[in-house]
Amino acid sequence: MIYADANGSLPLLPEVRDYLATRIPSQLWGNPNAIHTLGSQIKGGMDKCREIVGDVLGANPTQVIWNSGSSESCSTVLQHVLLPMKTGKTIIYSSPIEHAAIGAALEHYKNVWDYELRYMPVSVDGLVDESWLASELDGNHHRCAMITCMAVNNETGVIQPWEKIRDLSKNHQIPFVCDTTQLIGRLPFHFNDSGLEWAMASGHKLGALPGSGFLLARDPGALKPLVWGGGQESGLRGGTQNYLGVETLAVALQTLPTKLARIPQLNAWRKNLEAGLPSGTVVIGAQLERLPGTMLIGCPGVHGQGVQIELEGQDIFVTTSAACSDNEPATSKVLRAMKIDDILGRSVIRASLPLSASESDYQALLGSLKTAYAKLNRIKAY
Amino acid sequence: MIYADANGSLPLLPEVRDYLATRIPSQLWGNPNAIHTLGSQIKGGMDKCREIVGDVLGANPTQVIWNSGSSESCSTVLQHVLLPMKTGKTIIYSSPIEHAAIGAALEHYKNVWDYELRYMPVSVDGLVDESWLASELDGNHHRCAMITCMAVNNETGVIQPWEKIRDLSKNHQIPFVCDTTQLIGRLPFHFNDSGLEWAMASGHKLGALPGSGFLLARDPGALKPLVWGGGQESGLRGGTQNYLGVETLAVALQTLPTKLARIPQLNAWRKNLEAGLPSGTVVIGAQLERLPGTMLIGCPGVHGQGVQIELEGQDIFVTTSAACSDNEPATSKVLRAMKIDDILGRSVIRASLPLSASESDYQALLGSLKTAYAKLNRIKAY
Repeated sequence: MIYADANGSLPLLPEVRDYLATRIPSQLWGNPNAIHTLGSQIKGGMDKCREIVGDVLGANPTQVIWNSGSSESCSTVLQHVLLPMKTGKTIIYSSPIEHAAIGAALEHYKNVWDYELRYMPVSVDGLVDESWLASELDGNHHRCAMITCMAVNNETGVIQPWEKIRDLSKNHQIPFVCDTTQLIGRLPFHFNDSGLEWAMASGHKLGALPGSGFLLARDPGALKPLVWGGGQESGLRGGTQNYLGVETLAVALQTLPTKLARIPQLNAWRKNLEAGLPSGTVVIGAQLERLPGTMLIGCPGVHGQGVQIELEGQDIFVTTSAACSDNEPATSKVLRAMKIDDILGRSVIRASLPLSASESDYQALLGSLKTAYAKLNRIKAY
Repeated sequence: MIYADANGSLPLLPEVRDYLATRIPSQLWGNPNAIHTLGSQIKGGMDKCREIVGDVLGANPTQVIWNSGSSESCSTVLQHVLLPMKTGKTIIYSSPIEHAAIGAALEHYKNVWDYELRYMPVSVDGLVDESWLASELDGNHHRCAMITCMAVNNETGVIQPWEKIRDLSKNHQIPFVCDTTQLIGRLPFHFNDSGLEWAMASGHKLGALPGSGFLLARDPGALKPLVWGGGQESGLRGGTQNYLGVETLAVALQTLPTKLARIPQLNAWRKNLEAGLPSGTVVIGAQLERLPGTMLIGCPGVHGQGVQIELEGQDIFVTTSAACSDNEPATSKVLRAMKIDDILGRSVIRASLPLSASESDYQALLGSLKTAYAKLNRIKAY
């Protein structure tokens, strides 16, 4: 099997699987906030994990807030920044290619709280145009409640100009929310050097257990919680922690530094793959800096799900664009924002290989894509 | 080992452990919302779990919303009911013995949103007085935004008059939020017969994986999400689900019906235990209906943590009151609301045995308590 949907979710890493093999049968279960020694052992374990995660990602342990994952983190940070609404600060600048964890929340704030959403333009190959934001802010910075732009787009893999947007935000003293979900665990990242107020990650995207995750906060004491409760996480996130998930996050992140060193190699293998694709195929964002394992490939006129199914028949797992369902291929919201037409938009598949991928994974993927396109190009069913 | 902290958290059930032994090494990992067959298998599994949970708890599968647990559920329901603030509806009636998942959130709403909190009185043995609420509502129902009272108190195990409060709320058409966290999985419960709008449970209290849980909603489509995202859970709770946690919830809840049948037996064993306690000890709420495994036992003048440590020395795990820390015994918020003085309040230990406990667990607990009290009664250190 070749698993090429790492951006969607990453199966448990072998190291995590091995860890769980002895952890699950153990006796170490209980409430980490209880006064007995089972509790204090579990709590001590979580604090050790905090140090490990902080160490790998350049954060202080006190800046690590365990929670259920990025969607929760995004909702937490957005409500922290946006509620209550401040007089005169009614504009939110966003990109049209945000993950729904940001996008859906912003729609809510627009509907219920009267914020006005303004979208930065995005190029046809998927790069947000921050120069537009710079001129908007000249006139409107005083009315701006927040700016948000993801670090890396999950569909295209394109790395966004988040550092420039961060600087613009800082110059105007406007809160900047950067969704780092596809940055952490995929590219080098040092939280304290990043200049970001917050960063978020989901365990299931890192090869840890689903239902785990964390929010990094530069100034944790200032954060308004989303989930209230019994004082856990220094009062910043109520509820008994998913301590098993936390332990797997630490195990998973400990494997990261070695994997990041493979990026130049992965980029080279990806370059070969893309060079070998049949004529007629299009690689979205090919000229831009992208995650080394992500390729959003289309072939105008060929049904994206047809390619996905062909590949699955060869035990290779990719996805189509987020919006596709079995019977109604649709160009995704992200691609529509990039002004990509339906002929191309409905044809895309996203292959996202993990950092641990081998050269033969890239080669096998290319081989299967060539076979699939050769077969499907004969059928132009729509 | 005798684990008597079930109300705090319940170690993985043997059935869950067995399930995980083959599940974790399997290949079935991925994003349940992805278009490929790994995703659709995982998603199908979650829907099967929805049916199982609905079946055990008397809910329709569509009423089951997977999330990270009760604290998240409480925050979700409270923000749904309380935001935005409705003109003239400024009063919230609560009990002073609520779990912090409700209590801490209400404090937040009081501070930021100008709600006024009014507390129902509670008797010295831990029963909320709903007749007080009835007379308050006569004059103030039109100003009331919400009423909340837990079904079962986690410290005392006392079953609260939630059904009467539900009826009062319905008569006045006021939203009623009932924290069911210590009811589900401990006592018989049928959601659709309960007349409740919402019910919540945490996996780690049911012997499933930590970081799992669900909210039951009578009218799910009406719910305002707390965590926004990619449309998961019919748009009601964003973020990739903790599918492994969900599977363990189903496995755990399938064991419930058999265990509930043991309640009369457990009550009898608990009666024997309490009858055998040394003179000088006090059982809080002894005359009230309680969870069959919960005993909040004090011995005025004896340090509660001393008893907890003695019991741990005999491999029996109990807790003291929530507010205790190693060096500063303090009477818990709940006991203070019950007007229990420090001499008794600082002496309590809470033993909470699971539904699977044996008669010899109750007997061994009694034996150890007698030993501990005999030893500690000689030391009246504070």
